[in-house]
Amino acid sequence: MADIHFNKEKGSQLKLFTPGPVHVPERVLKEMAKPNDTHRSKPYSEMHQMATEGLQKLLYTKNECLLFTSSATGIMEACVRNLVKDDEKALFFSIGAFGDRWYEIGVSNGKNSVKETVEWGKAITSEIAQDTLNKDKYSVVLIQANETSTGVYNPINKIAPIVKDSGALLCVDATSSMAGVKLEVDKLDIDICLASVQKCFALPPGLAVCSVSDAAIAKAEQVKNRGLYFDLIDLHKRHIAKHQTPTTPPIPQIRGLTAQLDYILNEEGLEKRFERHEQLAKLTRTWASNNNLEMLPEKGYESNTVSTIKNSLDLDIPKMVSMLLDKGYRIVNGYGQLVNKTFRIGHMGEIQLNDLEEMLEGLTEIISMLK
Amino acid sequence: MADIHFNKEKGSQLKLFTPGPVHVPERVLKEMAKPNDTHRSKPYSEMHQMATEGLQKLLYTKNECLLFTSSATGIMEACVRNLVKDDEKALFFSIGAFGDRWYEIGVSNGKNSVKETVEWGKAITSEIAQDTLNKDKYSVVLIQANETSTGVYNPINKIAPIVKDSGALLCVDATSSMAGVKLEVDKLDIDICLASVQKCFALPPGLAVCSVSDAAIAKAEQVKNRGLYFDLIDLHKRHIAKHQTPTTPPIPQIRGLTAQLDYILNEEGLEKRFERHEQLAKLTRTWASNNNLEMLPEKGYESNTVSTIKNSLDLDIPKMVSMLLDKGYRIVNGYGQLVNKTFRIGHMGEIQLNDLEEMLEGLTEIISMLK
Repeated sequence: MADIHFNKEKGSQLKLFTPGPVHVPERVLKEMAKPNDTHRSKPYSEMHQMATEGLQKLLYTKNECLLFTSSATGIMEACVRNLVKDDEKALFFSIGAFGDRWYEIGVSNGKNSVKETVEWGKAITSEIAQDTLNKDKYSVVLIQANETSTGVYNPINKIAPIVKDSGALLCVDATSSMAGVKLEVDKLDIDICLASVQKCFALPPGLAVCSVSDAAIAKAEQVKNRGLYFDLIDLHKRHIAKHQTPTTPPIPQIRGLTAQLDYILNEEGLEKRFERHEQLAKLTRTWASNNNLEMLPEKGYESNTVSTIKNSLDLDIPKMVSMLLDKGYRIVNGYGQLVNKTFRIGHMGEIQLNDLEEMLEGLTEIISMLK
Repeated sequence: MADIHFNKEKGSQLKLFTPGPVHVPERVLKEMAKPNDTHRSKPYSEMHQMATEGLQKLLYTKNECLLFTSSATGIMEACVRNLVKDDEKALFFSIGAFGDRWYEIGVSNGKNSVKETVEWGKAITSEIAQDTLNKDKYSVVLIQANETSTGVYNPINKIAPIVKDSGALLCVDATSSMAGVKLEVDKLDIDICLASVQKCFALPPGLAVCSVSDAAIAKAEQVKNRGLYFDLIDLHKRHIAKHQTPTTPPIPQIRGLTAQLDYILNEEGLEKRFERHEQLAKLTRTWASNNNLEMLPEKGYESNTVSTIKNSLDLDIPKMVSMLLDKGYRIVNGYGQLVNKTFRIGHMGEIQLNDLEEMLEGLTEIISMLK
């Protein structure tokens, strides 16, 4: 039990180009190491308020934002348990592993769940959305903005109005794009927009966040057997009344979130941050193309935060990952059915263009050795 | 959004004598601030294994120990969802606010839930347990070891055999006593023994842990609609296969847990740690008695980790708490129905006898001014 250190040879030199958990800046780690008061204290409430008001700005919304002691999957379960009545149907648009997971959450919670899928690498287009919603009546529609497994970004701006026109509530999983890609919650009338913080927020994992509309809260009041831990009514009530949570929250991560939102909103600026993520993605795609590697996503739907690249050169992906690790960088293999058929480069959070360039140089060298 | 610091005047001087979140030592905060690899990496798996093997030693069990991205309430919900079938009854022994919460979790998850209570301040005795179990058949019995609201410690060593003789599965919430009070899971055949880490482990909140018996896993396989986030089968499977979790875990807290378990098991030693908590409790009770303050718990059932003290002198509790805060110490008011009728002193985690003596000196001064 003596040695509990990660990366003992490399220490802090390992730089994560992963689709989460991502590289966390030193200033955030230091901020999170400060001692805290309890979750029922005034200092906590002040911090909670700052974090959730910052989230409202980030998401362009007047909806309340809530904090969850869970991963994003926890809020995905909260959506299902709070918004779908026993005599209703929920529609899950799935374009990859996390869409499939959301559908599984629907099924495993005993909800009447329907899944509409496309081939991995494709997006849900507005046509697919419209066709599906013409065919049947759904009370809730659940969809990923950015699908972390395939690196595809769904055209949420086009899909949202179609879903809302159908009368359904709309839940958007923005786990791997929130704080990296612009998503205007009020303009699109998204009922629940959720994420965890170990992706574009550049924080360690352990906290998930969402915005929640009045319509979602009103709906939850009509749904039975919501459970207690993910009960939106209770979370919302405590948040409104006291800027607190019903159960004990992950205070270090909330402190980190407050610091990061301050940095994102007041130092880097939202537009610049979104632009930087766009540039990182473009650089990665250009690099891939220059190295004769195809992108998995269909053109026009590539993610700005994670690039899923086809193994067009038939490389030994585990070996490539391992060799890059020796240089102090981590990228990751494909997810699920895409293992060894693709690899993924995460470029989100506080990764800068020169960081990415450095890593890609190293990766180019390795590929020339492997191919 | 600029000022995100807690206790800006006192900085790190505030010392928490709270029933959680508690004071976290500087060495733990520093350990948690180290950069991490991802939750699918070998270094993570090694750390996960160290943490869970340490928990097995702490709990005197060969049962597997699991890590949850949730507060303890999350595992309380997991017990209900995984172990109680639709045609079965669950029995919740409640001696305070957290027992009541567990019963509410049963009800809000649509389970056939029965609550057996006593007056706050009293314990579930073996007689009560036996009488209740003679009256009806329950498939699962759920009970607090240490009830954080009343400061009562149930005689789990006597109750466990009675419950197990009835054929029921036994879930014990040891949130505010695990790592402070000895509880031998295998000897008592406890099926799920759970806690969060912001109590006697002296870690920041954001992680919950439990041991889980083979019988509990076998039972879960028969229960429908377990959901996905708290599915014990999936958590257990990933833990066994890879020392990982199905969803992203709170890596900093797990790193902290690994460090604390190393400290608890190999530096302080389990027996010494349990003894220290006993001494802290005795010191607090003697202090209360010397100040003409009665304990809430009935004699013989007082907690070793949190002292709930009656407001026998009719003190202005919020004022007392606030005056003590000015001295750099936080204690807390009573919980729920006990607000202003009691106050609570937490003495758990890394609080030492001289820390407690110092705080109690200050509190004595304040009481002499207030009474």
